[in-house]
Amino acid sequence: MSAADDTLLVQEIAPRDGLQIEPGWIETDRKVALIDELSDCGFTRIEAGSFVSPKAIPMLRDGGEVFARIRRRPGCLYVALVPNMKGAERAIAAGVDELNLVVSASETHNGANMRMSTDSSFEAFARIAEVASGTGVRLNGTVATAFGCPFEGSITDKRVISFAERYLALGITNVTLADTTGMADPRLVSERTGHVLRLVPTTGLTLHFHNTRGLGLANVLAGFQAGARRFDASLGGLGGCPFAPGATGNICTEDLVHMCHAMGIPTGIDLDRLLTLSRSLPALLGHDVPGQVAKAGPVWDLHPAPASAKVAPGACGTA
Amino acid sequence: MSAADDTLLVQEIAPRDGLQIEPGWIETDRKVALIDELSDCGFTRIEAGSFVSPKAIPMLRDGGEVFARIRRRPGCLYVALVPNMKGAERAIAAGVDELNLVVSASETHNGANMRMSTDSSFEAFARIAEVASGTGVRLNGTVATAFGCPFEGSITDKRVISFAERYLALGITNVTLADTTGMADPRLVSERTGHVLRLVPTTGLTLHFHNTRGLGLANVLAGFQAGARRFDASLGGLGGCPFAPGATGNICTEDLVHMCHAMGIPTGIDLDRLLTLSRSLPALLGHDVPGQVAKAGPVWDLHPAPASAKVAPGACGTA
Repeated sequence: MSAADDTLLVQEIAPRDGLQIEPGWIETDRKVALIDELSDCGFTRIEAGSFVSPKAIPMLRDGGEVFARIRRRPGCLYVALVPNMKGAERAIAAGVDELNLVVSASETHNGANMRMSTDSSFEAFARIAEVASGTGVRLNGTVATAFGCPFEGSITDKRVISFAERYLALGITNVTLADTTGMADPRLVSERTGHVLRLVPTTGLTLHFHNTRGLGLANVLAGFQAGARRFDASLGGLGGCPFAPGATGNICTEDLVHMCHAMGIPTGIDLDRLLTLSRSLPALLGHDVPGQVAKAGPVWDLHPAPASAKVAPGACGTA
Repeated sequence: MSAADDTLLVQEIAPRDGLQIEPGWIETDRKVALIDELSDCGFTRIEAGSFVSPKAIPMLRDGGEVFARIRRRPGCLYVALVPNMKGAERAIAAGVDELNLVVSASETHNGANMRMSTDSSFEAFARIAEVASGTGVRLNGTVATAFGCPFEGSITDKRVISFAERYLALGITNVTLADTTGMADPRLVSERTGHVLRLVPTTGLTLHFHNTRGLGLANVLAGFQAGARRFDASLGGLGGCPFAPGATGNICTEDLVHMCHAMGIPTGIDLDRLLTLSRSLPALLGHDVPGQVAKAGPVWDLHPAPASAKVAPGACGTA
């Protein structure tokens, strides 16, 4: 991460977190093409798949083949989520650049999602860290439900900080705080980001937000103001989680990049190319997607003025 | 506005800005019922209609009857948009508490929307101010396209400030900066709000945002941080403008109130009551509405933990 201090880095997660809940099968060829096209948009990180039970997530059962066939753009890390040692071994064999480990700050959520205690999760991570050591494969540690749990409610700063510390104790200095079911608000994001940035370097912290309650970009703004510089986002706003009641989608990559460019915050992403790619999603998936800039266009795309004669007087005003 | 300094005040605009582009006629009875139910949610301002040409906006042609029949909750101002002297006279006769005047900062947009120059708009406002003087009817001056014009592009600080000054020169100390077609970004909002608050008192400034490009609540956050305390919003996120290409809805009232309450910012609004009302909109209008909290529920509404046995292992993780 050699970016300037004011650059906001986006990790594109549509190929993993976006696709995993899609109902219809997407051919390996089309997944590879999507990831290659994302690579050309200028991302420095793409979460390109997961190595989980094919029974649990059938859509991502072809992770090995996807990683074997994608074009590796220099300067981009290709990441995979792994839930356990078996997944880690498969991912390392597939040539994944970084393994994304996940434990929920909420004991209840971790039980539901991973079917184990959070202590057991960290024991598994310790073994994975040993296996990954010396292979050149990097590790990222995600704290899920880091801003609230749909079952337990509030999650304390202390709990989240202790989980970050447990990752650090394993030598894992890349940490993601994930708002798994869209429970974060800007004030909580600001405070919690500040706390965690005392432990985790800015270049190692990623924030992962959902737009479940319309707060996705407001939370990014709060996190950025608090010093965070890396954010997960999903092309078109694809995604959600089958185990997170009410969750309705990750924040949308192109809407985030558009916000940044409108504000003068560099991202290194080619927004026009990204918008073209986003506009191809409905044909790929067979349904509309939540992203808004792909529909409305960026603010700098102006419209021809209407002929006044065609316009009725006093019709709109402040709208 | 006797609210504490940290209170965010919402002016509900669904009955005017929300309904005006609805394709199907809504009976006067149902408009009155909607406004009465909004009154019971605790708003201090409701934009309840407009007095424009019935040919231009057929939906709001019954403004006089609506104002005659709504219940006036003490402590709430009932506002109407008026485009010209004729509208102002009708609105005053109908017992409107405050007239909302509108001119676009963009000359091109004012020509398209009002079919007159901005100078002519201010000449009309001067005459309206004379007519309103002594009647007890208040005036609010809106600067439309205050954060950008879909035809002209950027609008300068200087232009917006000069328009605020022209309102002040007419004795109009309540001023709205309207992002008519959703072109604002948080940095611009922060800067422009700061400039205008040097002229207009905090208790007089309203910010009006659209969520066209997903930035609605991020812009509210930026405006609040810059000192603004009053914001327009529309129940369910209803609205848009037929003369604003690409515009797709006002910010959603219940999503805004939910954000505030999650952050500990008081609004004086009964969110549960508001959510119940929002959930009645699809039946009233015959279509889904954009608001998200009405679908996902507030963050403090928890869910029962799933039985672990029903959950497949390693299925989701960071989602």
